[in-house]
Amino acid sequence: MNNNRYCVIMCGGVGSRFWPYSRANMPKQFIDFFGTGRSLLQMTVDRIKGLVPDENIIMLTNAQYAGIIAEQLPQLKPEQILLEPARRNTAPCIAWAAWHIKALNPDAQIMVAPSDHLILMIDEYRECVNKAFDFIASRSAILTMGIKPNRPETGYGYIQVGDMICPDIMEVKTFTEKPNVELARVFLESGEFFWNSGMFFWSADTIIDAITTHAADIAAIFDAGKHVMGTAVEQTYINERYSSCRNVSIDFAVMEKAPNVYVECVDYGWNDLGTWGSLYDNSEHGDAGNATLGSNVMCYNASNNIIKTHGDKIVVVDGLNDYIVADVNDALLIVPKSKEQKIRLYVNEIKEKFGDKYL
Amino acid sequence: MNNNRYCVIMCGGVGSRFWPYSRANMPKQFIDFFGTGRSLLQMTVDRIKGLVPDENIIMLTNAQYAGIIAEQLPQLKPEQILLEPARRNTAPCIAWAAWHIKALNPDAQIMVAPSDHLILMIDEYRECVNKAFDFIASRSAILTMGIKPNRPETGYGYIQVGDMICPDIMEVKTFTEKPNVELARVFLESGEFFWNSGMFFWSADTIIDAITTHAADIAAIFDAGKHVMGTAVEQTYINERYSSCRNVSIDFAVMEKAPNVYVECVDYGWNDLGTWGSLYDNSEHGDAGNATLGSNVMCYNASNNIIKTHGDKIVVVDGLNDYIVADVNDALLIVPKSKEQKIRLYVNEIKEKFGDKYL
Repeated sequence: MNNNRYCVIMCGGVGSRFWPYSRANMPKQFIDFFGTGRSLLQMTVDRIKGLVPDENIIMLTNAQYAGIIAEQLPQLKPEQILLEPARRNTAPCIAWAAWHIKALNPDAQIMVAPSDHLILMIDEYRECVNKAFDFIASRSAILTMGIKPNRPETGYGYIQVGDMICPDIMEVKTFTEKPNVELARVFLESGEFFWNSGMFFWSADTIIDAITTHAADIAAIFDAGKHVMGTAVEQTYINERYSSCRNVSIDFAVMEKAPNVYVECVDYGWNDLGTWGSLYDNSEHGDAGNATLGSNVMCYNASNNIIKTHGDKIVVVDGLNDYIVADVNDALLIVPKSKEQKIRLYVNEIKEKFGDKYL
Repeated sequence: MNNNRYCVIMCGGVGSRFWPYSRANMPKQFIDFFGTGRSLLQMTVDRIKGLVPDENIIMLTNAQYAGIIAEQLPQLKPEQILLEPARRNTAPCIAWAAWHIKALNPDAQIMVAPSDHLILMIDEYRECVNKAFDFIASRSAILTMGIKPNRPETGYGYIQVGDMICPDIMEVKTFTEKPNVELARVFLESGEFFWNSGMFFWSADTIIDAITTHAADIAAIFDAGKHVMGTAVEQTYINERYSSCRNVSIDFAVMEKAPNVYVECVDYGWNDLGTWGSLYDNSEHGDAGNATLGSNVMCYNASNNIIKTHGDKIVVVDGLNDYIVADVNDALLIVPKSKEQKIRLYVNEIKEKFGDKYL
């Protein structure tokens, strides 16, 4: 295996749209949603097994999740877990990872992956990852993975492709924010637009150059600490300086500005599991289209619901259609699938009313 | 206080229509449905305080509930709790109580009361109870309480009244089983029909005579044991013979046959709490008509639901109308109020599928 390959898994997200399953101390990526015995994070690590040396896998997460990660991934050494002292979106987090890895290995080739996505076609995925690593090994490229869209989704950003560089890898023409449904339909039909997956590939040098050019303020913070990276005082330095980073996404800070951005067009059964609805779409459907995640669910005159329960709790549902029913020990949510965007609102109201107790 | 007065509280019922709150080991009468800190049984005992000497209150229940009763009513002495070794409906249970009490006090005047009803106007209730005791003290009468109906209820039996004996106490003309809704409307408008409440008054002698005449087989069993009643071997005798009693209600075995049956017409805010719907009717309604039994329920676009939760569990409901949502640790029920009669079916199916685990 190529020892220059690194994988940075971002797993500090909050995932409040999956409340009450996703909680402040146990966000979505740590949950075994499908009852397979593996959390989304564990499935992410399983997927890259053999593509990247085990010791080159690095978790980037919020300090509060250090315990869960150590528990779910006991094979990791403490130095493979980088703990952000504050939430500053993806650009500072990716910058830290770049400067950190550069100190460990100046020739590093880095893959950045979210920890909470679902990928169904693993062989295809692994082929695409290898191809991406090969691509960035041979040139100073910022490469993102673009997912072939299968519906006019309005919840994602889109990437418009330009000239082909090699099979399935194109120049990026534009990044587009979440479109309205009419525009999303045009995107879908054109064949030129791909979903922005949040998976990136680059060498340590390339991303450090790009951040230095396009987000100099962030670069300055990590560049000033480059001599402590990979040492025992790195965390102390980060704890002191990280919070002063601007809160900004890597897309906005770098991807949309850099000239050397490419997209690998892929199609390997991807879903970002952003909402209960997308979990419903990716779950097995039983009688009448109900997706039941949990052992003892009995449905009568109920259709197209997603019903998630825990342990051996029994749930009897009569007469509900197109609902989310999500039950945990201390919280129960019953909401139409069409209103799942409101879950964040409810979580905010709960916070106002009860503080952090149910979050 | 009149030391001849006794009160028999029947508290051996199963109450499966209130699943999942009502469980085989914790039926409806033992539950604090209204969150007042008192179960329906405790409220029943509280209500007769001062009307009957404390030591003359007798529980008639199934053996399996001995522990709960001792816990909920620690003031009772063991000899105040009669434990049926089997379920045989109300006639055998009332017969046992009659022979038992007759042995303790041949002049006993007995009130028989269910343990799982709600009564809102306590002063009126107590007045009616006193009047009933006075009535049966002076004559050989079987007296039942008939509730003034306020709606064409099809779930209850009705009593048609005949000649007035004294204010509010009439002869009984007929007992009528649950009517259809057209008939129930006629009953309501006529003013001649009252709901059969299952509350009875009689002297020990009168009910023993009536059972002997109209249900001789049952009488024989208790008459053969009359010398052990009130002694240390009473329970042994009952354990041996009780199961051989016919399974029959006191209404069918005696009330509908005896000539000396009277009804006291009462109106003291009674509800039998037979179903979630009647619990809804008797609960406080908040915004949009939702009755929330439990502390932390948040409703959005939801109306006329009854939502019962436990402890400090939080429940968020969006978009439900006219539903029952009942959540306990190991079970959750979501069913339209209009289908509450099906809960028994569901409970049966759960039994078939999972045995007694969730019952």
